[in-house]
Amino acid sequence: MATIRIFVTGGTFDKEYNELTGALAFKDTHLPEMLRLGRSRVDVVVRTLMMIDSLEMTDSDRVLVVEQCRDAAESRILITHGTDTMVETAAALAAALPPASGKTIVLTGAMIPYAFGSSDGLFNLGSALSFVQVLPPGVYIAMNGRCFESDRVRKNRETGIFEVI
Amino acid sequence: MATIRIFVTGGTFDKEYNELTGALAFKDTHLPEMLRLGRSRVDVVVRTLMMIDSLEMTDSDRVLVVEQCRDAAESRILITHGTDTMVETAAALAAALPPASGKTIVLTGAMIPYAFGSSDGLFNLGSALSFVQVLPPGVYIAMNGRCFESDRVRKNRETGIFEVI
Amino acid sequence: MATIRIFVTGGTFDKEYNELTGALAFKDTHLPEMLRLGRSRVDVVVRTLMMIDSLEMTDSDRVLVVEQCRDAAESRILITHGTDTMVETAAALAAALPPASGKTIVLTGAMIPYAFGSSDGLFNLGSALSFVQVLPPGVYIAMNGRCFESDRVRKNRETGIFEVI
Amino acid sequence: MATIRIFVTGGTFDKEYNELTGALAFKDTHLPEMLRLGRSRVDVVVRTLMMIDSLEMTDSDRVLVVEQCRDAAESRILITHGTDTMVETAAALAAALPPASGKTIVLTGAMIPYAFGSSDGLFNLGSALSFVQVLPPGVYIAMNGRCFESDRVRKNRETGIFEVI
Repeated sequence: MATIRIFVTGGTFDKEYNELTGALAFKDTHLPEMLRLGRSRVDVVVRTLMMIDSLEMTDSDRVLVVEQCRDAAESRILITHGTDTMVETAAALAAALPPASGKTIVLTGAMIPYAFGSSDGLFNLGSALSFVQVLPPGVYIAMNGRCFESDRVRKNRETGIFEVI
Repeated sequence: MATIRIFVTGGTFDKEYNELTGALAFKDTHLPEMLRLGRSRVDVVVRTLMMIDSLEMTDSDRVLVVEQCRDAAESRILITHGTDTMVETAAALAAALPPASGKTIVLTGAMIPYAFGSSDGLFNLGSALSFVQVLPPGVYIAMNGRCFESDRVRKNRETGIFEVI
Repeated sequence: MATIRIFVTGGTFDKEYNELTGALAFKDTHLPEMLRLGRSRVDVVVRTLMMIDSLEMTDSDRVLVVEQCRDAAESRILITHGTDTMVETAAALAAALPPASGKTIVLTGAMIPYAFGSSDGLFNLGSALSFVQVLPPGVYIAMNGRCFESDRVRKNRETGIFEVI
Repeated sequence: MATIRIFVTGGTFDKEYNELTGALAFKDTHLPEMLRLGRSRVDVVVRTLMMIDSLEMTDSDRVLVVEQCRDAAESRILITHGTDTMVETAAALAAALPPASGKTIVLTGAMIPYAFGSSDGLFNLGSALSFVQVLPPGVYIAMNGRCFESDRVRKNRETGIFEVI
């Protein structure tokens, strides 16, 4: 079983409620806790690249993500990412890392922070971690239990649902 | 996107705490609620075949599961099942439905009931639902974030972890 | 057992995560659900007066709260309220409804929204509902498991803890 | 603010799901975690006397509970206890520690284990901790948001609700 590389970039996944300010904010990633809860025995290496809302992700942030994926020794990579610009980051990755690169990259996120009771985060993580183990090289988005190719997906802003275009 | 058939058989997944008797018992399946929580947009048809602890699953129960899988119009089938005899049911399915049958069948379950705070159920459901969409015909077990071929897996009773044999 | 009047004014207690906007917002009050979860058999009548962040509570909002308490047929009243200006509202109530009015009024709130996993809301509701049943006429704040007289309490902004002054 | 003594005896409150055996069992008490979640600032001293299902509580266990309450330096005592024989233990306490003893003793418990998602435990703890701070000497049961005198209460086995007799 090959090791999976997990890159954390923040997003709703990891937002928390700051009880002193009443605002949503980032502290540490919940990824390791979520993998424990899922009793995951997949061999993973987790690295936090940034901890930001994906609406604030800049071009240079995306360059960093692409470089980290290109330089990773692992050929299978999972990225946690805010849903608002997940499609843009997927496009940047697909442009730089075509299937011939041999990399299978799956991006996922959450509509509700994991720290809140009703999050879809754990479901999405289980989904993305599974897709990344078996899909052929390419860049994908795993949301809503489905897997989309990076150039054939959009987030519907009205419904919050990812759909094929 | 082809419809996925989901068969519910019970197992820890669906156990609840009966507050009048203080015992664990089955009521209704939590599958639909879990799919809602995961914001799943996978096209599924859910059917409850039985609602039992897998230690109580008899040969005739297994015959029923096999027949339902054989008769299902869908070629991709997910089964929720208690972990204790999941491997036995997978073997019965593999014997009756070889890859040539064209069926991709994934069994999953949970170590902790979904109704309890710290369940692995949502993670496992996301995982199994993803594997079943992309794996070639065969019978598999999706647990611990991994996917095992039905004849190369066992549940380690000491650790509660599924492992390759 | 006399009926307890519960007035809902909003506050962190009832904030929810809006998954389309990514912002915290109010929908309906969670009070009835929380009372069900607590298996409460206290005779209560719940009325929502407003659904706002207490930092946005105006003088005329406070006049409304005071009038509703004065006009209530019940002599025991619980108010859910944002913690930031809970002390101000308590002071307005104490000025208008001295012990001679015969009213026992207890304000409570939460540091973390009830809808989030780690809320103190259920604990605080159990606490406030208990204090309001047994305390003599007066205006009180129930937070942190304690009960404070309305003119001898402040919220420590550094720690988020209510303390005696 | 006088210190409250908390005695833990087990009960549904503290039951957990053992994922290897599939049975409900006791490990450590959740009391400290629950007090943290409730952001309690009440001065308490917690001591675990036993960790049992209250149906298994013997006469000598009850003697131990009574002695510990009598010997406690604190005059205000909260006891967590299984609901099935809570009334019997309350009666034993009331016989040994009449109001003249100066002790205010409140027993509480839960219908659903705290470790499960839908527990009433946090509500009940908030309630009992509040009642014990303000009630006059005597032995009480705090359940369902209400407070009952020890000789005027029973648990209705059909409904799981405590009621006045």
